[in-house]
Amino acid sequence: MSALPHTPPAVPRINPERLWASLMELASLGATPKGGVCRLALTDLDRQGRDRVVGWLREAGCEIRIDAIGNVFGIRAGQRGNGMDGEGPDARPCDDPAGLPVAIGSHVDTQPTGGRFDGNYGVLAGVEVIRALNDAGLQTARPICVAIWTNEEGTRFTPVMMGSGVYAGAFPLDHCLAQVDREGIRVDRALADIGYAGRDSAPRFAAYFEPHIEQGPVLEAEGITIGAVEGALGQRWFDATVTGQDAHAGPTPLPMRRDALLAAARMVQVVRTIATDAPDYARGTVGQLFVHPNSRNVIPGRVEFTVDLRNARDETLDTMVSQLRAEAARIAREERVEIDLREVVYFPPCAFDPQLVAGIERHAARLGHPVRRLASGAGHDAVYVARTCPTAMIFVPCEGGISHNEIENAQPADIAAGAAVLLGAVLDAAAR
Amino acid sequence: MSALPHTPPAVPRINPERLWASLMELASLGATPKGGVCRLALTDLDRQGRDRVVGWLREAGCEIRIDAIGNVFGIRAGQRGNGMDGEGPDARPCDDPAGLPVAIGSHVDTQPTGGRFDGNYGVLAGVEVIRALNDAGLQTARPICVAIWTNEEGTRFTPVMMGSGVYAGAFPLDHCLAQVDREGIRVDRALADIGYAGRDSAPRFAAYFEPHIEQGPVLEAEGITIGAVEGALGQRWFDATVTGQDAHAGPTPLPMRRDALLAAARMVQVVRTIATDAPDYARGTVGQLFVHPNSRNVIPGRVEFTVDLRNARDETLDTMVSQLRAEAARIAREERVEIDLREVVYFPPCAFDPQLVAGIERHAARLGHPVRRLASGAGHDAVYVARTCPTAMIFVPCEGGISHNEIENAQPADIAAGAAVLLGAVLDAAAR
Repeated sequence: MSALPHTPPAVPRINPERLWASLMELASLGATPKGGVCRLALTDLDRQGRDRVVGWLREAGCEIRIDAIGNVFGIRAGQRGNGMDGEGPDARPCDDPAGLPVAIGSHVDTQPTGGRFDGNYGVLAGVEVIRALNDAGLQTARPICVAIWTNEEGTRFTPVMMGSGVYAGAFPLDHCLAQVDREGIRVDRALADIGYAGRDSAPRFAAYFEPHIEQGPVLEAEGITIGAVEGALGQRWFDATVTGQDAHAGPTPLPMRRDALLAAARMVQVVRTIATDAPDYARGTVGQLFVHPNSRNVIPGRVEFTVDLRNARDETLDTMVSQLRAEAARIAREERVEIDLREVVYFPPCAFDPQLVAGIERHAARLGHPVRRLASGAGHDAVYVARTCPTAMIFVPCEGGISHNEIENAQPADIAAGAAVLLGAVLDAAAR
Repeated sequence: MSALPHTPPAVPRINPERLWASLMELASLGATPKGGVCRLALTDLDRQGRDRVVGWLREAGCEIRIDAIGNVFGIRAGQRGNGMDGEGPDARPCDDPAGLPVAIGSHVDTQPTGGRFDGNYGVLAGVEVIRALNDAGLQTARPICVAIWTNEEGTRFTPVMMGSGVYAGAFPLDHCLAQVDREGIRVDRALADIGYAGRDSAPRFAAYFEPHIEQGPVLEAEGITIGAVEGALGQRWFDATVTGQDAHAGPTPLPMRRDALLAAARMVQVVRTIATDAPDYARGTVGQLFVHPNSRNVIPGRVEFTVDLRNARDETLDTMVSQLRAEAARIAREERVEIDLREVVYFPPCAFDPQLVAGIERHAARLGHPVRRLASGAGHDAVYVARTCPTAMIFVPCEGGISHNEIENAQPADIAAGAAVLLGAVLDAAAR
């Protein structure tokens, strides 16, 4: 048999300069003297940022929908429609699964001393995908949606990842609308003030992609351009208190001591050892530690510290916690102190969609970009969105792994590479 | 040969009830609601305490001398005189070594939340020895002197052990007179205000004894009444800084971390191990530790902590410090951090007089009190006085080893036992 003749499809390509220019233009809104960005959620600067992106989406032919928590959806219609049944505020997500859009999203709010890329990159990579499709004159089968999630950073209002959490049903809408900032301003009031208290229902997605800077050091250190993110680590956080006995450092012989800091120091090492010995992207960190009375010549009678355990698998996380409790009991016995462990936070692990992750790897390889699988150690909107549809993230390197900092930086070539891989993966998903 | 007939000497005995009553009366000056004492150096309460003891010494027939730093000396003349050549402010320590007094002393200033026994016991045990000699109508060969040293605690004015330090030539007088409290009041002004800016020269001593509560747990735990103190531990104090790299606890894999707290935790254990493995009453303590940025999900980039090493022998202390530096270098290398160790304090070890220490043991045994040798882990006026004459300390148990605390407590029987041993040791020294 001879090969069938076929017409190559139009090949859209992202425009690296345009993407970078949009990133820098958005970064100018709330720019700090040190080169970062301060654009807290639902402030007037956040309005300016949203307005800028919404303007670009409208220029690119997207229909804009805004839901009650202020999430913004810019929809480029596909051959199968715009992802909604009906018009305007009365429109509902379409009944036909084949008509659901492929979405790309992240956030445009920042930390008080935030950088230019965190969140903003994901949104603008989505804008660039739509611009590239327009340039190529290509209408995909499914619609394409760019999502801006409200208040991902959680700096002004808690909880973090508020918009995507409401979208995914993790938080009740009314609860979030009633949250207040330090000045007592409610979320619903702040949304209305900046013109983003929407009434549209949100679209459902066939698939969701979130490009993001890694916010960690792995890709840069290994010389890899694309991280195909397999999922986000589950987290179990503890508050620990060690109670021993204050005593004068001079007259108290070593065997008679009940030194809370010595016991805590052993626990700090235990946390590291447990994580080192565990599989599945295990992490273990003691980030905070307070000594009482914290005086040079007094044996510490009480130490408080935190434990942050993370893992990609819940079962492994359980094992790590069991080890932590067993070691705490052993050290308490040996050092004649009490060690109290109280669990304060649990985020379950989130596994992204294997097919989408494999697609990201495939497109990276096709484009000649070194790629490796990673887990996201931090939270992202994608973690909540993954509860509603197949989801994946694309990481690109950031300088020194530094983020949530005004010196956060990324290279234009990496930014472009991530968007190109995104475009390929989106086209696949939009054709299915 | 038949034994020579001999006349037993008058046998003075201390009066336990009188000693206890004096302690409680002195403790009423500055008494706190929780049962402790607040009588800071050179305050009006300190004046009241000094006046009360000086009154008791005068009643007991002592001549009072006050030197320029406010140290008080109550001298009971012996067969060989009053320890001075000349009269009044012009008197100088006598030229004849055989005429020098045997002294008993300590301090009557307290910590802000101090106890009833620290310092006060040593002074009042001295007063009781003089009263007991008076009761027995016994004149010793050498004079007996009770010393009250100015500002031992160092709470209001630094340095600590100011009065005994000036006496021993460790601090220049003018430097100490010019020290100020938090309100800017100078020592010389405060001395004049309470009437203790003296002009007398201080006596020199043939021997010095300082009874004191142990301020540690050993005697109580071992059921021993008398500690024959061999000396005071030398001390070497360090400020340590560990510099690693702040990083987000989620995205940063374990092998890429430069965790300052993990390195500091290993150092805390090293300090304990070095002390555990060393002879000569070794102690090692990390009492103070600060973590930066001290946030639950940030790997600590900097930790500051203190190291307090103590030992009875300078050579052993040197070895401990060498081990500390070597271990710091090893841990810094392994954890890829910097560890900076700066020595901030050095007190040399102080060995007390072997003959006096043996005499304390002998008298404890004679009186049926369990006795053991100890080192003083803390500083005392005796450490400075030991630079000028043969010196020893007598420790008695204190409840739970607790001191510098309003709940500081001691048993009347132990207080009496310490004074009885003191009396025996003083009589020996005063006869030599």
